[in-house]
Amino acid sequence: MRRLYHSWFCPQSRKVRVALAEKGLDFMLSFEKTWERRPEFLLINPAGSVPVLVEEDGSVIVDNYAITEYLEEAYPDRPLMGTTPAARAEIRRLMDWFDVKFQRDVTQHVVSEKVLKRFLRMGEPNSEAIRCAAHNIKIHLEYIGYLADSRTWLGGDQFSYADIAAAAHLSVVDYLGGVPWDVNEAAKVWYMRIKSRPSVRPLLKDAIAGLRPPAHYAQLDF
Amino acid sequence: MRRLYHSWFCPQSRKVRVALAEKGLDFMLSFEKTWERRPEFLLINPAGSVPVLVEEDGSVIVDNYAITEYLEEAYPDRPLMGTTPAARAEIRRLMDWFDVKFQRDVTQHVVSEKVLKRFLRMGEPNSEAIRCAAHNIKIHLEYIGYLADSRTWLGGDQFSYADIAAAAHLSVVDYLGGVPWDVNEAAKVWYMRIKSRPSVRPLLKDAIAGLRPPAHYAQLDF
Repeated sequence: MRRLYHSWFCPQSRKVRVALAEKGLDFMLSFEKTWERRPEFLLINPAGSVPVLVEEDGSVIVDNYAITEYLEEAYPDRPLMGTTPAARAEIRRLMDWFDVKFQRDVTQHVVSEKVLKRFLRMGEPNSEAIRCAAHNIKIHLEYIGYLADSRTWLGGDQFSYADIAAAAHLSVVDYLGGVPWDVNEAAKVWYMRIKSRPSVRPLLKDAIAGLRPPAHYAQLDF
Repeated sequence: MRRLYHSWFCPQSRKVRVALAEKGLDFMLSFEKTWERRPEFLLINPAGSVPVLVEEDGSVIVDNYAITEYLEEAYPDRPLMGTTPAARAEIRRLMDWFDVKFQRDVTQHVVSEKVLKRFLRMGEPNSEAIRCAAHNIKIHLEYIGYLADSRTWLGGDQFSYADIAAAAHLSVVDYLGGVPWDVNEAAKVWYMRIKSRPSVRPLLKDAIAGLRPPAHYAQLDF
């Protein structure tokens, strides 16, 4: 069966999980402890990062960017990236927004301070980094709310990779209790719609040993 | 005329400059001081980042990822991303390698310490960050040499976005005197071939006020 090497708190891995499910593609998950730099895994991806997708025919597609575009090219029946050049440009812009800007502003601080330092025993969380992320996420929630208010979905008329990328980051940060949902009602309503999708449900059942999510994490109406 | 908003030490902007030239597309450059967060520019790209491409018909394509894919879709005559799914996956993997991993390992340290701190008067360069980049780039040069030894170009048989992404980062770091070319001969020979391409020549003529490149920067045989 198709296999996805992933990591629990990697938003790009979560994005691929949702995209595969939206496209109706079966897959099994392999949790890769990327920090162990396993030699067999480095042969597949010398960067040592996830996500990595191995298709049933053995072909290997490495990293967020290549997998995202590959899935759209190989399985176009259920499009997730729009159909016109303008739509695709907008959806890719928003993927960059979340995978580069949101990642830098919010996700990397929260994950490195609340998860990596704990599991890798790298010392106490840096409270300044966490405060920084807590400030930045409010601006991002306002922007998500603005998009959700002016469009059917974040990227336009159709549910797309823009929604998936946003939801992937937010779900990671939400698991760690870092999303102040009361900041923007439209963003919250959009995320409720996201949570109710069958493709997203498996993410809400993730339970990482030793680290419990807040009670609202899996609730559709929160 | 087509316009590219760019920044001199932004590798992703350099990548787009080379891609436009390879595809035979005329354009003018607008230097955007992204740190000033100019309101008119934020209307075009709320992330405030470059590159941003404005086409002659006024359509706006925002950020590295969207522009890269857009140029390939809109101007397919001179392909820069291979023609098979496997070729595209490999070229995109290498773009991720340079735009994410090389950026994090090398470029961001060199640019923030040697350029941003100087022009924005943010204090003395952090010598530990520069040493870290100097260590990391050796590993990257070995990897580039390995690819160049085993293939015609970095991404496969054809000159591609993989070469362009690698050259864009290296040219930025080289301008700042940060590339130890004697580490790997195959990487150096590959870069000599890159430098001799008409699409790359304009980069070698860049002269940023107050910051001169080393003598070998523009030399084809260095």
